[in-house]
Amino acid sequence: MKDFSPTRNFALALDTADPLARFRAEFDLADPDLRYMDGNSLGRLPLKTAARLQKITADEWGRNLIRGWNTGWYEAPARIGDKIGQLMGAAPGQVIVSDSTSVNLYKLAHAALQILATRPKIITDRLNFPSDIYILQGLRSDSRIQIIPSSADGLAPDLDALRAALDEQTALVTLSHVAFKSGYLYNMAEITRQAHQTGALVLWDLSHSIGVVPIELDAWDVDFAIGCTYKYLNGGPGAPAFLYVNRRLQSEAISPIWGWFGQTRPFDFSLNYAPAPGIARFLAGTPPILSLLAIEPGVELILEAGIPAIRQKSIELTEYFIRLAQDKLFGRGFMLGSPRQAEERGSHVSLRHPEGYRINRALIEEMNIIPDFREPDNIRFGFAPLYTRFEDVWETVERLQRVVDERWYEKYPKTKLAVT
Amino acid sequence: MKDFSPTRNFALALDTADPLARFRAEFDLADPDLRYMDGNSLGRLPLKTAARLQKITADEWGRNLIRGWNTGWYEAPARIGDKIGQLMGAAPGQVIVSDSTSVNLYKLAHAALQILATRPKIITDRLNFPSDIYILQGLRSDSRIQIIPSSADGLAPDLDALRAALDEQTALVTLSHVAFKSGYLYNMAEITRQAHQTGALVLWDLSHSIGVVPIELDAWDVDFAIGCTYKYLNGGPGAPAFLYVNRRLQSEAISPIWGWFGQTRPFDFSLNYAPAPGIARFLAGTPPILSLLAIEPGVELILEAGIPAIRQKSIELTEYFIRLAQDKLFGRGFMLGSPRQAEERGSHVSLRHPEGYRINRALIEEMNIIPDFREPDNIRFGFAPLYTRFEDVWETVERLQRVVDERWYEKYPKTKLAVT
Repeated sequence: MKDFSPTRNFALALDTADPLARFRAEFDLADPDLRYMDGNSLGRLPLKTAARLQKITADEWGRNLIRGWNTGWYEAPARIGDKIGQLMGAAPGQVIVSDSTSVNLYKLAHAALQILATRPKIITDRLNFPSDIYILQGLRSDSRIQIIPSSADGLAPDLDALRAALDEQTALVTLSHVAFKSGYLYNMAEITRQAHQTGALVLWDLSHSIGVVPIELDAWDVDFAIGCTYKYLNGGPGAPAFLYVNRRLQSEAISPIWGWFGQTRPFDFSLNYAPAPGIARFLAGTPPILSLLAIEPGVELILEAGIPAIRQKSIELTEYFIRLAQDKLFGRGFMLGSPRQAEERGSHVSLRHPEGYRINRALIEEMNIIPDFREPDNIRFGFAPLYTRFEDVWETVERLQRVVDERWYEKYPKTKLAVT
Repeated sequence: MKDFSPTRNFALALDTADPLARFRAEFDLADPDLRYMDGNSLGRLPLKTAARLQKITADEWGRNLIRGWNTGWYEAPARIGDKIGQLMGAAPGQVIVSDSTSVNLYKLAHAALQILATRPKIITDRLNFPSDIYILQGLRSDSRIQIIPSSADGLAPDLDALRAALDEQTALVTLSHVAFKSGYLYNMAEITRQAHQTGALVLWDLSHSIGVVPIELDAWDVDFAIGCTYKYLNGGPGAPAFLYVNRRLQSEAISPIWGWFGQTRPFDFSLNYAPAPGIARFLAGTPPILSLLAIEPGVELILEAGIPAIRQKSIELTEYFIRLAQDKLFGRGFMLGSPRQAEERGSHVSLRHPEGYRINRALIEEMNIIPDFREPDNIRFGFAPLYTRFEDVWETVERLQRVVDERWYEKYPKTKLAVT
């Protein structure tokens, strides 16, 4: 970070020079003092989404009623899917928005295991999101799922062990592109290539990378991908997830959930299921239209800003945060819980501290900073380049220092909140 | 129908005497001339839902951001589930709102087949909603699914054939409580009892009956049920569906989709799935909060009105419609596509006509009446007692007569719309 200086003025100068600065005004900023560092968990509300939701509710549902289906609802899973596809190097016709990330993982992993039915093994790793591992456990007995350990410090995968596990028994390798806790960024192209050498299929969970990290699914020849839309895509709480099936697999990949939206001609009401040609066969039931349409304006903002500029600023934000933390926090019991090298890191950074849980709570309740906490001692800070300012980063570190120096966290119990 | 008279004044008198009349003002009535007869497909927008959605968007997402999860989002699937449970005689703790009807059917049918793993057969019938049959076809080979034919006129099930099919090989009987095309209302208590006599489990799809027909799941000892929330519950387009698992089955019934919301303690991020105790184990991924919370005000309106009063008015509306149709339409090529007896009928009525498809289109585009069309010749009219007036019924029949007498339908092609 050139000419780094641990001063607020340096942060303000970075904001002034920020080519993405104008995007912040596209979001609801109801509380101007709030430093929201959890856009990696739930992205902010785009103002256009608020307006769109009002129009959907009053005009499309309230006035058009059932006719709404003929005004863009029916096409929305594929239309929004194709837009998300542009963010991850997927040509049209390979992405739909549908169900939740967990359900989509279930559908695609089931399809992959059916394609390679003679191979018993699934490979994943300890850095993967637990829900992804649960889905695999529901599909295959534990003995057939190999969970690769992480590196000794828990921040990174053990890539040697991963390579060594790949064999002709492996049907599927499934990993999170960016690890939910440490923020480690996998080399998707390389791991996909290695898996393909043994004939295995790969399925990537892009929940923590979509919209903030460059992804080239077609160029890297990825087989399957899933991901959520409510983090950097700002799609709204629990917004439906997306799934990608590479075109070359679309005729043989079959969803286990044969719902009418995945039928060839759902409104013929035939009594025999025939999967739709193309990606639509991975739709299941009627999609939740309000939550689905709310995704679109946020995706369009990301498209407008462009992933290269977003990645550039994301790296600057995380580098700046780590640099400030080195100066001000590492002497106070904090240590870095994320990779130090930008090329190995997504857009969130974890700081570890023995009092992490209580510090996180004090930040939220006393300091108007919102990060989040992940067991056992990680406070995660998310950097959303469309609205996170360098000044937010500066202020976050300032308030973190106060919470520790002034021992604000001591008033909180050591027990855990149900949801944070 | 006492003192029936084929006059508008008779309709207006019925509206004046209607004890549920006040509920109509609870809905968005943007187009006062519109006669909306498709509440059985997509219910109207409750005004409270519009206000609630604005609050969720601006305050809960826009301002509270991730903290929204601690203000009722996390509990919403069970909270709204219990309210829906009150509408169908289900004590608390047996219903959640989650995913789509198709995905919920998949989860519960899979669980049932696992409980009775030694029994190969599923029984359903031709009146069931095709998507339900597709889901079954995805779970079991065709040879193991017995699709009972319907009665000769296609309006009712062949109950003798259904009884005869029940045997010790049967794992699951799954039917729609009210048939989507004819509106036939099954005797859920009786069929459930018969299935149980052979040791089979039953799963009822309540999509076309919830909120408008009396249902007593606990008293009738039903095993599983599913249903949608966007018809008579007015939950919004594609709103998440509900599912019911009888408490006596909850410890042995396992969802095939092991998502984190169905885990015992999802925020411990353990790497081993342990299903939550109780009904929560049938949750999967993060629910679509906007679409989910939008369900609640509509359900509360139904609770306030009460199912007995709703059923009473529903019968009066459908009887009145059929009575008018007998007078004015049956000489014009129409015939009844629904059971004539109120106790065998849900809250929609199909009229069949050789030109049904074009008549339906002319009704929508020329007459500002919205029913819907189901192949090959059924025009379906839905009666939603909270907002359908007797005058709407009168006016619908008047305009239907004009469409036929003045041959308005002849300007439309005989081909089909993609979605109606």
